[in-house]
Parts: sequence; C-alpha cells; structure tokens
Amino acid sequence: MLYIIGLGLGDERDITLRGLEAVKKCEKVYMEAYTSLLSFGLSADGLSTLEKLYGKPITVADRDMVEEKVDTMLSEAIASDVAFLVVGDPFGATTHTDLVVRAKELGVNVKVIHNASVMNAVGVCGLQLYRYGETVSIPFFTDVWKPDSFYERIQNNRKLGLHTLCLLDIRVKEPTWESLARGKKQYEPPRFMTINTAIEQLLEVEQQRGESAYDEETECVGFARLGSEDQMIVAGTMRELLAFDFGAPLHCLVIIGKTHPLEEEMLNVYRHK
Amino acid sequence: MLYIIGLGLGDERDITLRGLEAVKKCEKVYMEAYTSLLSFGLSADGLSTLEKLYGKPITVADRDMVEEKVDTMLSEAIASDVAFLVVGDPFGATTHTDLVVRAKELGVNVKVIHNASVMNAVGVCGLQLYRYGETVSIPFFTDVWKPDSFYERIQNNRKLGLHTLCLLDIRVKEPTWESLARGKKQYEPPRFMTINTAIEQLLEVEQQRGESAYDEETECVGFARLGSEDQMIVAGTMRELLAFDFGAPLHCLVIIGKTHPLEEEMLNVYRHK
Repeated sequence: MLYIIGLGLGDERDITLRGLEAVKKCEKVYMEAYTSLLSFGLSADGLSTLEKLYGKPITVADRDMVEEKVDTMLSEAIASDVAFLVVGDPFGATTHTDLVVRAKELGVNVKVIHNASVMNAVGVCGLQLYRYGETVSIPFFTDVWKPDSFYERIQNNRKLGLHTLCLLDIRVKEPTWESLARGKKQYEPPRFMTINTAIEQLLEVEQQRGESAYDEETECVGFARLGSEDQMIVAGTMRELLAFDFGAPLHCLVIIGKTHPLEEEMLNVYRHK
Repeated sequence: MLYIIGLGLGDERDITLRGLEAVKKCEKVYMEAYTSLLSFGLSADGLSTLEKLYGKPITVADRDMVEEKVDTMLSEAIASDVAFLVVGDPFGATTHTDLVVRAKELGVNVKVIHNASVMNAVGVCGLQLYRYGETVSIPFFTDVWKPDSFYERIQNNRKLGLHTLCLLDIRVKEPTWESLARGKKQYEPPRFMTINTAIEQLLEVEQQRGESAYDEETECVGFARLGSEDQMIVAGTMRELLAFDFGAPLHCLVIIGKTHPLEEEMLNVYRHK
C-alpha cells in the first residue's frame, strides 16, 4: 500500500492522527522536497524533528528522484506499506496525480490522507472560497521570457466578480546553465517569489496589455507563511502591498473580486494600516 | 483565546496533532453540529468517542445556539481557552467568518487550526483544483420554490472550460410548519441531498432554460463520504450517475470542464463501469 499523506501547512504538528498512524506502520517513508523544504524550515534539523516524531528515517525524494526513481518506491509499495509525505494536501496546489496513475498501472493500492492546503486555508482571510474563480500561477519573469497567460484568467474572474488566488513561483533545484553545458548537475540557489515581485509583474503586464483587468488601486490580500505560527495576512491595494515587507517565504496573493458585507467586515481585521 | 479547530472530513482521527494539543488545553469545548452530526456518525456514541479522545466533555452547539448563544462562548474565551470544533476546515464550505468578526469586536483572540475541507479534498479525483471556477450550491426544490441561480454560474464556468464543484443541500434542524405555528420548536427529520436528486434538478433546470449549459451526456464526478474509509468516487455522465446508488451522505458533485490528458488518465481510475 502506498499512503500519500498530506502534512498540512505549518510544521510537524499539522499531520493528522490518521496520517501519523499510517506513517508509523509504514516500512519506508519518503518525503517530497520540491516545495516542502522551507515550509517546514527543513534544514537538517527540521528533518530530524520529523524523524523523531515518526520514530523512523525519512528518505527525501528530491526533484530528480520524483522524476526518475519513483518506480523503486512503487515497487516497494507492492509488497509493503510505504508512505509518501507531501506538504499541504496531496491534491492541493501541487498535485500528485501522475504518481497515483503510475501506482494504479503497477497494481499498487493507494490511500490518500488529506490535510489543509493553501487552496482552502486562504479562506481564513474571510473571502468565501466558493466565490473564487480559476487559480493562476505567476512565474518569475526574465528579460526575454514574460509569460502572461494569468492576465486573461484574472480578467475573466474579475468580470464575474470572483476572487483570484495567485500562486507565486518557486524555483528549487534548478540546474545552472553552466552545469547543463558540462553535463554535471549543479543547482541555482532556491528562489521564492515575494508578493512584491508578483505585484510588480502584474502591474507590468497590465501596463502592456492596457485592458484594465486591474490597477494599482485594486484590493488584494497578501499571505505569508500561511498556516504557520507567524503567518502574516494583510489586505490592501496593490500599491499599498507593493511597499509592504511580508518577510520570509512562502507568499501568495489574492486579488479581490466583488465582496459581500461580511467579507468586508472580515477584511477590515486584516486591513493595511 | 478562542481556538477554531478544523476536524477534517472522515472521523475523530482526522484532527491534527496541533488541533488535539489545543483541545486538550482548553477549559471548554464546543462543537458545531450543523453539518457535522452525520459526517462523523455522531450518534451519542460518536460524541463519546470524541470526548474519550479529548479527555473532556463537549458541548454540542446546535443551530439555535450558534445563532443565539455565541456570546456566552465568546465571553468565556476572554478569560480562558475555549475550543470551537468544526467539521472540515473552519473556512471551507461552511465559513465561520461571522464568529471571528464578533470575537474581534469583543477583543477575543482567535487562532485558527486548518484541516482538509471538501473544497480541497475533491482534488483526489484528479481534476486539478486550479481549474475550478466558482462553486455552486444546489438547494432542495419544492413544488413552488426552485431557485436556479447555480445555472448561470455553471454556464460561466463551462464557457471558460472550468470544472464546477456543486455542494448539495443539507437540511438539519428545520422547524416543522406545525411547530412554527404553535410557537413550540419541533424539527423535521434531517435531509441530505443525494447526487441523484442533484442531477435530476440540474436537468430539470436545463430543460426549462434550454441554453445548453450541460446535458445528460455531460461528464461529472460524484463523491460520497469524501475523506472517510468508505468514500466512493465515480466518474460518468449525468445519465450514468443518475442511476448510480452512492449510499449514505454526504454527497457532492463535480461537473467536469475541459480536461488535460493527465486529468483524463486519473478519471479513468474512477470511471463508471
């Protein structure tokens, strides 16, 4: 059996009792490291905190492994219980559909243990989840590569009065250009997009497209370290949030659509002062 | 401090370690019963299972109390630690924004402990959460009352190729007409909309409106008891699902928009046979 277990958003205490029970009975425990390293402050210390809680070693399944060596994990899961740990929910912002499909092809039984994800935890700001439209991803722009497919989606959502959750780019284990040329893997330092960069890029695209999907005065909510003890939630215009320091990653951003009075009342709690 | 704690979807083992820790240190524990009774099989037995796990009594805050007596709970939370337990996530399908706003007005500190919600756990079927449009609610129709505002929303989502999550009506503690007339509260037995009823009503509205937002051949996914050990997930056309018996509540339904190949592969796992 392959258990795909959501760890939630904050730290090691966000696993569910059901999830912990499953980890404890598994013979082997893998952890997806793609987005998880920092969410859980996963220095060597963070990992050992988890290992102490679970009472067993964890194999960090970094991006290379997730892409290249998943079959080893799956073949282990045919004969024994294996856990694959995922920060947030297994089918939240980063989905593990491909893993489930491959497992099913190999005849491996899969059990999913859900948890909170950024996709539902943003509800804490008071904007109702059922009033969100399509979610968009904001990728890091370079001088020559500025993909802006998010623009049209935000525009569509706003025409319908819906809120838009913007997931901000994470670059972990990106091979350097140099290493690609030499055929020897070396990695860029990890990069996490801030709310400030996201808003800069959003406004840059608006200036180019000029279709008034949003502007500097558009109301937003910025979230940093959502679900952690030191989470930060601030509501304000793009202009206001552009100048605000949200601190350490992860960040995400919601562009507000049409609000109800109760949503407004709740946003006031988080209003930029 | 008022802790608003999500319990997740399945049973008592879906609380997080952080949530359980909070409950254990609270002097008083309330539980929202509006939608929760059945999710956790909350007969008297279910409640005592929770009380045993927490090591303390739980006050069930039924709908009357949630509306009328919340201030008692909030005033207790000024001087001591109080837990308010919510099935799913505190800001998922049913939101508790009003509670937070009232708490803030009274100067009560609030801490939210997130968990899985139907809003993110539907991701398990393989349809990616960021490709969902606005969520709709399908209310029970009567002979004279058939509100169909969901129709336009589904139509808008489908025009954009987006999936639609349909939350199905729950009627708990509805006063009987007779009791309203007599001024003495008596309640109708609880009712939970099945996927079958939802599809019947959807097709009834399509027939009246005739704008081809969807039809009998539209692909959907039906979910029953999502997140529980005996959850059921079936993908098929409205016509196919209309004839399918999903068993006990809670049910919800996703109307599929435009799919990617990986979404299709995953749906095949759940395809109606």
